[in-house]
Amino acid sequence: MTVGTIFGVGLGPGDPDLMSVRADRLVRGARHVAYFRKAGRAGRARTIVGGMLRADAREIALEYPVTTEIPLEDPAYAECLSGFYAGVSQQLRDLARAGEDVVVLCEGDPFFYGSFMHLHARLQGHVPVRVIPAITGMSAAWTATDIPVTWGDDVMTVLPGTMPAAELARRMGDADAIVVMKLGRNLPKVRAALRAAGKLDHAWLVVCASMEGERVIPLSQAGDGAVPYFSIVIVHGQGRRP
Amino acid sequence: MTVGTIFGVGLGPGDPDLMSVRADRLVRGARHVAYFRKAGRAGRARTIVGGMLRADAREIALEYPVTTEIPLEDPAYAECLSGFYAGVSQQLRDLARAGEDVVVLCEGDPFFYGSFMHLHARLQGHVPVRVIPAITGMSAAWTATDIPVTWGDDVMTVLPGTMPAAELARRMGDADAIVVMKLGRNLPKVRAALRAAGKLDHAWLVVCASMEGERVIPLSQAGDGAVPYFSIVIVHGQGRRP
Ligand SMILES: C[S@@+](CC[C@H](N)C(=O)[O-])C[C@H]1O[C@@H](n2cnc3c(N)ncnc32)[C@H](O)[C@@H]1O
Ligand SMILES: C[S@@+](CC[C@H](N)C(=O)[O-])C[C@H]1O[C@@H](n2cnc3c(N)ncnc32)[C@H](O)[C@@H]1O
Repeated sequence: MTVGTIFGVGLGPGDPDLMSVRADRLVRGARHVAYFRKAGRAGRARTIVGGMLRADAREIALEYPVTTEIPLEDPAYAECLSGFYAGVSQQLRDLARAGEDVVVLCEGDPFFYGSFMHLHARLQGHVPVRVIPAITGMSAAWTATDIPVTWGDDVMTVLPGTMPAAELARRMGDADAIVVMKLGRNLPKVRAALRAAGKLDHAWLVVCASMEGERVIPLSQAGDGAVPYFSIVIVHGQGRRP
Repeated sequence: MTVGTIFGVGLGPGDPDLMSVRADRLVRGARHVAYFRKAGRAGRARTIVGGMLRADAREIALEYPVTTEIPLEDPAYAECLSGFYAGVSQQLRDLARAGEDVVVLCEGDPFFYGSFMHLHARLQGHVPVRVIPAITGMSAAWTATDIPVTWGDDVMTVLPGTMPAAELARRMGDADAIVVMKLGRNLPKVRAALRAAGKLDHAWLVVCASMEGERVIPLSQAGDGAVPYFSIVIVHGQGRRP
């Protein structure tokens, strides 16, 4: 019997039409389809593939044991997640060893701040793992603004909104093009950092890029509440152009 | 008569299987297909779509009037290119006004250091333009290394290898994950900058990611000659992971 393969399949930013031809084929052909989701939610990755799954596909919903109940800094948070990832990896390893391929659905590109990375680290060297790159959320976000993000010698800096405010502001001041990910409750902090860096007036907020409900707003005109999980801030580069 | 649309279609990193479902459909259906290339070359974008074009597709090869003959800093370089982009834009505008859609083939994501941006800037507001995002060369490159590029609070910095050496080294020293694009003859400079930043031993050179002839080499073991145009350096982030 041959060992199966675990596929980390990037689905892209949300619009199923932006999945790669390879991802589309793998998803439609899969007998085992796994995806992360918050308990009680449909799960964004599962939503993207909508009605594409085989009628006899076996779905494996991987429900996070914790999301925002324990603060990120608490060692209990890492411990809890670590146990979860270990258990899931064991489950996928068993399937592969029983000869089954498994498609793990990933939002955006799997190796760019993705959850699949935590499985990959635990599966690599044990069973065959293959990663399919994908269009990132940030590509869909700058496309939605209808303005190119980097020209000529522009430096592009990608910042997680979870970073400390002063560090954000320092790095924003030193960048040409800026992408800020993981906004959610961090939006007021990110906005203040952009103001401190003198770049607030050039920043755009993109919510749900390429998904239903996509919105593109000058950040200075956005409210100060939390934004949906799928939100990105973009500051476009102004580099050399003939 | 309705005005046609100019589509800037991102093809992704090179493997046609990594084109989006939408790009695949647009390319296969197009009556007018335009693409940049060096004079006398087949052109990478055209090569990616191989035999996908309609038998009656009209091809419009856009040949750069200059590539490395005039140094980048010379004002004559910008002038020459600017005239070229203006002429091409006029040609595409005329086609759109005659009611024809045109698909412009773009390597990687069109709005990320792409040539199409120079047409977009000259077409926008005159005729309908639509951009289709795509998988970037860097996504294919980090996927080829089989190591995730960013974890937790990692900052990712994208640097053009064309930048001055000292500036490269300074920014490399301040980054978690690093992507260096536009290597070519800049490789020795980029390597020296990474050494100065203390990161050479963690750098990977990826040549022709997802294309025929893909190679992944520790940068410290790569020769000091020029590398192909489609080459990227990756330093992976080492951020928080449960
Ligand atoms: C854990 S990271 C995963 C990133 C993903 N792997 C990618 O390649 O884009 C989640 C963050 O990605 C961003 N994001 C991903 N897709 C997005 C989209 N379609 N629209 C807006 N933001 C998106 C948001 O900032 C979100 O907080
Ligand atoms: C003018 S930029 C265009 C980038 C492209 N729009 C993208 O999204 O990747 C050209 C540079 O992209 C990088 N590149 C693009 N595709 C690549 C690939 N498949 N493998 C390696 N490098 C690539 C190289 O560094 C090259 O010098």
